[in-house]
Amino acid sequence: MERLETKLEIADGIAILTLYRPDKLNAFTGRMMHEIIAAFDETDANDDVKVVIMTGAGRAYCAGADLSAGAQTFDYDSRSEDAGGDTPQSSPVRADGSVDYTHEAVRDGGGRCTLRIFESLKPVIGAINGPAVGIGVTMQLPMDIRIASTNAKFGFVFARRGIVPEACSSWFLPRLVGISRAMEWCATGRVFGAQEALEGGLVRQVVEPDELMPTAIALAREIVDNTAPVSVALTRQMLWRMLGADHPMEAHKIDSRAIYARGRQGDAKEGVMSFLEKRPAVYPDKVSTDMPDFVPWWAERPYE
Amino acid sequence: MERLETKLEIADGIAILTLYRPDKLNAFTGRMMHEIIAAFDETDANDDVKVVIMTGAGRAYCAGADLSAGAQTFDYDSRSEDAGGDTPQSSPVRADGSVDYTHEAVRDGGGRCTLRIFESLKPVIGAINGPAVGIGVTMQLPMDIRIASTNAKFGFVFARRGIVPEACSSWFLPRLVGISRAMEWCATGRVFGAQEALEGGLVRQVVEPDELMPTAIALAREIVDNTAPVSVALTRQMLWRMLGADHPMEAHKIDSRAIYARGRQGDAKEGVMSFLEKRPAVYPDKVSTDMPDFVPWWAERPYE
Amino acid sequence: MERLETKLEIADGIAILTLYRPDKLNAFTGRMMHEIIAAFDETDANDDVKVVIMTGAGRAYCAGADLSAGAQTFDYDSRSEDAGGDTPQSSPVRADGSVDYTHEAVRDGGGRCTLRIFESLKPVIGAINGPAVGIGVTMQLPMDIRIASTNAKFGFVFARRGIVPEACSSWFLPRLVGISRAMEWCATGRVFGAQEALEGGLVRQVVEPDELMPTAIALAREIVDNTAPVSVALTRQMLWRMLGADHPMEAHKIDSRAIYARGRQGDAKEGVMSFLEKRPAVYPDKVSTDMPDFVPWWAERPYE
Repeated sequence: MERLETKLEIADGIAILTLYRPDKLNAFTGRMMHEIIAAFDETDANDDVKVVIMTGAGRAYCAGADLSAGAQTFDYDSRSEDAGGDTPQSSPVRADGSVDYTHEAVRDGGGRCTLRIFESLKPVIGAINGPAVGIGVTMQLPMDIRIASTNAKFGFVFARRGIVPEACSSWFLPRLVGISRAMEWCATGRVFGAQEALEGGLVRQVVEPDELMPTAIALAREIVDNTAPVSVALTRQMLWRMLGADHPMEAHKIDSRAIYARGRQGDAKEGVMSFLEKRPAVYPDKVSTDMPDFVPWWAERPYE
Repeated sequence: MERLETKLEIADGIAILTLYRPDKLNAFTGRMMHEIIAAFDETDANDDVKVVIMTGAGRAYCAGADLSAGAQTFDYDSRSEDAGGDTPQSSPVRADGSVDYTHEAVRDGGGRCTLRIFESLKPVIGAINGPAVGIGVTMQLPMDIRIASTNAKFGFVFARRGIVPEACSSWFLPRLVGISRAMEWCATGRVFGAQEALEGGLVRQVVEPDELMPTAIALAREIVDNTAPVSVALTRQMLWRMLGADHPMEAHKIDSRAIYARGRQGDAKEGVMSFLEKRPAVYPDKVSTDMPDFVPWWAERPYE
Repeated sequence: MERLETKLEIADGIAILTLYRPDKLNAFTGRMMHEIIAAFDETDANDDVKVVIMTGAGRAYCAGADLSAGAQTFDYDSRSEDAGGDTPQSSPVRADGSVDYTHEAVRDGGGRCTLRIFESLKPVIGAINGPAVGIGVTMQLPMDIRIASTNAKFGFVFARRGIVPEACSSWFLPRLVGISRAMEWCATGRVFGAQEALEGGLVRQVVEPDELMPTAIALAREIVDNTAPVSVALTRQMLWRMLGADHPMEAHKIDSRAIYARGRQGDAKEGVMSFLEKRPAVYPDKVSTDMPDFVPWWAERPYE
């Protein structure tokens, strides 16, 4: 799809996805949601991409939902324009006034975004350049690593707007920073700086603004230059999905299959031989064509 | 119910629930259990309460189970009095000597307490003023935030008493401090100070004794003064319950419903407009009457 | 079984299990896997063992899979010798070339090991004396506590070898260090020092090499000298298994049973009386004979 509110640049194995509404502090719209999802479809399909970096253009990362609809911002039925979900084709409100919550138009647009990032086959690094509020911060939670500029600010401000944390953040946030910190941030709705984010474990590192992209790129390079993309793609899905598994045997089922299948492929032979020969590896397998046949090992989880 | 072993004071949106057996170091009894549960029923039902703070009267927070029954303390069948569970109406021991573990009298009183706190609709802050041992510390785990006085001590001493961690602490503790720290504290049964609790992530902050209640109240005020109570109630249940969910889609199902339902309510309109108008919000919705119709979205989990 | 690649020494309540191929940096083999599993069968059955310490002989902890098979290392079908799983009795490759992933020969040997350590009835402390790479580090994850020498190094190098994290590490690692750190270590495949392991929460403490065993033994002694072995065995299984439970009620079901059953046993009477009499406890119950009748409360989880 045409990119109007994002930019996607690919070079040297790294895709940089930039939120691009700098005059609006990159406020989130339904359009931006679709572009983010489409970007991850593209980075997953493109073997030239080994890592994705997400950042924002201008002085903000993302100021949250676009509030230009005022009091109607979160009242999807009363708005003609769509600021976070798909444009409703029909209304989820039934004739008797009750709501059909399984209606597609009820689905939170932030959650569509984070579920797509959750499913990414390439590692995702957030380079958080400035304020990140509401969906601006919750969209970061399924990223693998967040690096913050000293200019970054964060706010889980939902309860100040009379709504609730979205974008699956009630699942992601306590797993990243613990339930106690998550509750404090969400119950106060406080906007806090990069240092508090670092202390809470939300970000890996805080750097000066002009060090932000170099730091993110250096970390991305460490992945691109050293590891086999098919291995990394499998690893990403194994780690994230096992966060929800109830027993380590579930991991054993998958990693046994994966070690067995990967052990027969060229990457494993090259990985061992390059190590024994003390030379850089050149991995032959590609994410687009060489994923093992047992992938996906999970069932699609429907919205219902 | 009449309060004999606790006090409940409500002012300015904050309920302070005090364990009140100061001459017994607030040792836990069956009576105290019932009073704590009743207190949370009251704070949930009372819209004047936005946050609950729990603390102890006198020099201890809670010294644990009342051991005045000596060797019979944990042998429920041999005691006439009840020190942790409901008074048994009948015995779980069958005629052949085997135990009916599904009998209500088997249920741990500490767990009845922590499950009730888990279900609280208002955030819960622990102000830990002194020693907190056994159920004195495990009752704190479903609280959202713990602040400790420098006089606080903690001990998961169960294995030193020949019993096991109770009050659902095997579920809560590893999620708060990690499995490694949890195992170290439970396997050694060590009593440790506020500093070790801070390093382990059990408490958010350690303050001088006379700063304890002011610090807890200041944090409670940040919630009371800024956020919509219905949003906070929903958020609390979303975050805690998603700790047990196996996939972020489960959060998407709930937060989509919640954003949709809340977006149509007065709080969301007031939340956005007060922000745009740069003025304090006055949220119209009440927890007692305005929770969305899809709540509770979870099934009751029976003891069996 | 005869010990050729490990040593097991038992004294004063503590078992020390040493990986013993010092001239091969204790590289992991199928033989070593079977010896580790057998060692935990022995320590579980032996009431003289209250805690297990694992360490490595010589300058390494464990250099990972033995790579002496070169490019065939992870290609189980093309090797005559077995370097990580059981020796295949038949091939999982069907006549049509497809793989029967449920075949026992597909099972990862590292996972057999970590699942056995997961099930240990005695706490397990890792004393990590030197480099620990691949299965050398993933085998540590189901241990309760890891203490590192300043000589220790760690590497989740799987993606550099063209394979994936094994030994159920996709389940264990994010629960120990968080998903973000886990992804960084696994996606880069970086080898890192003890200090980074400490910062990430992988190890509890870093000490000088000659302080390693004394520190591990002192911690083990704190357990051995103070707590009831049956209580510790139950506690270990409760905490680890509740990591996978979806609701605190699941803990309430077990801890109610356990408090009830243990309260009637001699350990609970001795635990309370020794405390009231301010004397050391002498716990009468034994893991081999006195575990409550509701253990195991979990169903076996098959590989399939």
